[in-house]
Amino acid sequence: MQILQTLPREEGYKMPAEFAPHEGCILIWPERADSWAAGGYAARKAFVKVISAIARWEKVTVLASYGQYENARASLPPHVRVVEMSSDDAWARDVSPVIVKGPDGTLRGIDWGFNAWGGLYDGLYFPWDRDNHIARKVCDLMEIDCYDRRDFILEGGSIHSDGEGTVMVTEECLLSPGRNPDKTKEEIEQVLKDNLGAEKVLWLPFGIWGDETNGHVDNICAFTAPGEVVLAWTDDQQDPQYERSLRNLEYLMSEHDAKGRPIQVHKLPLPRPVYVTEAECAALDPVDGVPARTPGERLAASYVNFYIANGGIIMPAFGDPADTKAAEILAQCFPGREIVPIPARDILTGGGNIHCITSQIPARG
Amino acid sequence: MQILQTLPREEGYKMPAEFAPHEGCILIWPERADSWAAGGYAARKAFVKVISAIARWEKVTVLASYGQYENARASLPPHVRVVEMSSDDAWARDVSPVIVKGPDGTLRGIDWGFNAWGGLYDGLYFPWDRDNHIARKVCDLMEIDCYDRRDFILEGGSIHSDGEGTVMVTEECLLSPGRNPDKTKEEIEQVLKDNLGAEKVLWLPFGIWGDETNGHVDNICAFTAPGEVVLAWTDDQQDPQYERSLRNLEYLMSEHDAKGRPIQVHKLPLPRPVYVTEAECAALDPVDGVPARTPGERLAASYVNFYIANGGIIMPAFGDPADTKAAEILAQCFPGREIVPIPARDILTGGGNIHCITSQIPARG
Repeated sequence: MQILQTLPREEGYKMPAEFAPHEGCILIWPERADSWAAGGYAARKAFVKVISAIARWEKVTVLASYGQYENARASLPPHVRVVEMSSDDAWARDVSPVIVKGPDGTLRGIDWGFNAWGGLYDGLYFPWDRDNHIARKVCDLMEIDCYDRRDFILEGGSIHSDGEGTVMVTEECLLSPGRNPDKTKEEIEQVLKDNLGAEKVLWLPFGIWGDETNGHVDNICAFTAPGEVVLAWTDDQQDPQYERSLRNLEYLMSEHDAKGRPIQVHKLPLPRPVYVTEAECAALDPVDGVPARTPGERLAASYVNFYIANGGIIMPAFGDPADTKAAEILAQCFPGREIVPIPARDILTGGGNIHCITSQIPARG
Repeated sequence: MQILQTLPREEGYKMPAEFAPHEGCILIWPERADSWAAGGYAARKAFVKVISAIARWEKVTVLASYGQYENARASLPPHVRVVEMSSDDAWARDVSPVIVKGPDGTLRGIDWGFNAWGGLYDGLYFPWDRDNHIARKVCDLMEIDCYDRRDFILEGGSIHSDGEGTVMVTEECLLSPGRNPDKTKEEIEQVLKDNLGAEKVLWLPFGIWGDETNGHVDNICAFTAPGEVVLAWTDDQQDPQYERSLRNLEYLMSEHDAKGRPIQVHKLPLPRPVYVTEAECAALDPVDGVPARTPGERLAASYVNFYIANGGIIMPAFGDPADTKAAEILAQCFPGREIVPIPARDILTGGGNIHCITSQIPARG
């Protein structure tokens, strides 16, 4: 693995869309007991379902700590690969390398700086050094070269690419003071363009209300095809999410992508608000003696947090009447892909969802 | 990765010779401070030389702890892959899977039990659980299926295969009370045949005098071709090694291999005795408060502990007049392969040598 200081765009590398063909997918085995109730017991069961679903269509590698390797190996199907790797938690989307593809079809990874979604300003845990080493180690494992971008804080969940020159982010996240406070919006946009090989950045104002990641785009809006997105939506004007989704919609209607196309927006309904229970809070280890979550806290539940596998959409289900509607909309957006709803509460209570725990490897060539 | 309980021989799998083509090689990055002087500093320099030499001809994967990953990555050439994996020490030969090859050219690994060369009876460290997990994890990493033989204690350094049905071991090691004391010699021979796909086991009486592994065969005798071996030799009748090498020679002269061939023995001279110095001992962390080595202790130096790479022989050098003679003999035994002597004192003081720290992956197909 070469460590590169050059810029992907200058070398013709760009980030493929998630809906383009994958070689595989990376996940991390959960065990952090202040993130996951009961030492991660229920989360691991949910992860196994997600992993098994993705493995129907893609080669999956699961990273597990030394202590959890044997358990992960025994819990997962044989055709899923388990590799020992240290981490601080299980958010592969945010700590894995963002993979870019070159004109010759080769892959390279980008090793962004990671500071647990805000560092000492408003990050979610400390320390985060094991997470911050994962991107480079995954590149090494995959035998691909790695761009060193550790001086710029970015998580994979805060960007979406259409693979045709357009990248989508939220202002709420990328301009948050815990990321790159010394950089202007224009400078940040240039970093995105230079590294993801993009010509246009779409800046949605907001993420999902209460999202601990400072509003990652991957929980509120996702490309389903070039020029098309799904946007998390509620018709309930009393919901604090209403104004946020509306502002995003207005922004998207006013914009064009890098190819000059208007953005076609499919509204994806939110489930009814999901609140963390007293039992779920009690099952979390405290952080420095302080409870990790408060009973009644609203979780950032959204159907947008799905994973696009080669042959299917792995969709979070919440046991909500909107589950069916969301599945119908996604089926229309992704013809030819099977919709696979997975009960996701035990992932959601950890602070993210199916997209957050996955990271696709684009197909080479 | 499937975990298999079946027997390789019944499925047509057998262990290729080390001199057959390789896909690559596995090593482990050294850091154990009661094995390696000065926290492994000098050993790592020597390992880098060995790894760089092998990487001229083969794909090399180096396993490093979380704490040493960045150092290993920075110290090694970019075309060498570094993968995080926990270990108790750096003896890849003994803790990696022994790889067998099937009739269709696919590879499978054997995960033998590992107990640090003798367990609580006369093992060299405790605990050894991280080492004992490596073989299975390497199979998982390589995406090959794995035979579960954890109920039988065996290290890769205690066996040699000619790839044509003959396996060579020492009685001193395989019958040692710290390995499989409940099994007779005949039962052990059957385990070797069943798992390595062999028809004949050559039982040398002895290893190198003072070898901490209870006399691993890979320090005293190695196949250089079917029907041909090099045997560590001294003409000094006062040397405690003399009687051992003589007994081995007599045994080999009296035997035939699985194909009925007599064994042609090339004597490989020993270097002059190598003793550990006071300074080297002082630079070792003590074990449970007790010095790890005693000044003046004789080390089990032997030129037989070389690695056969695809295009070269990576040979230990001791700064001894016999270095040249050994290189000449090996050049005759391995026509077409370059002899690459590497100063090996900083590996030898850890208790083994170049063959002990390497583990070849046979070529598929």
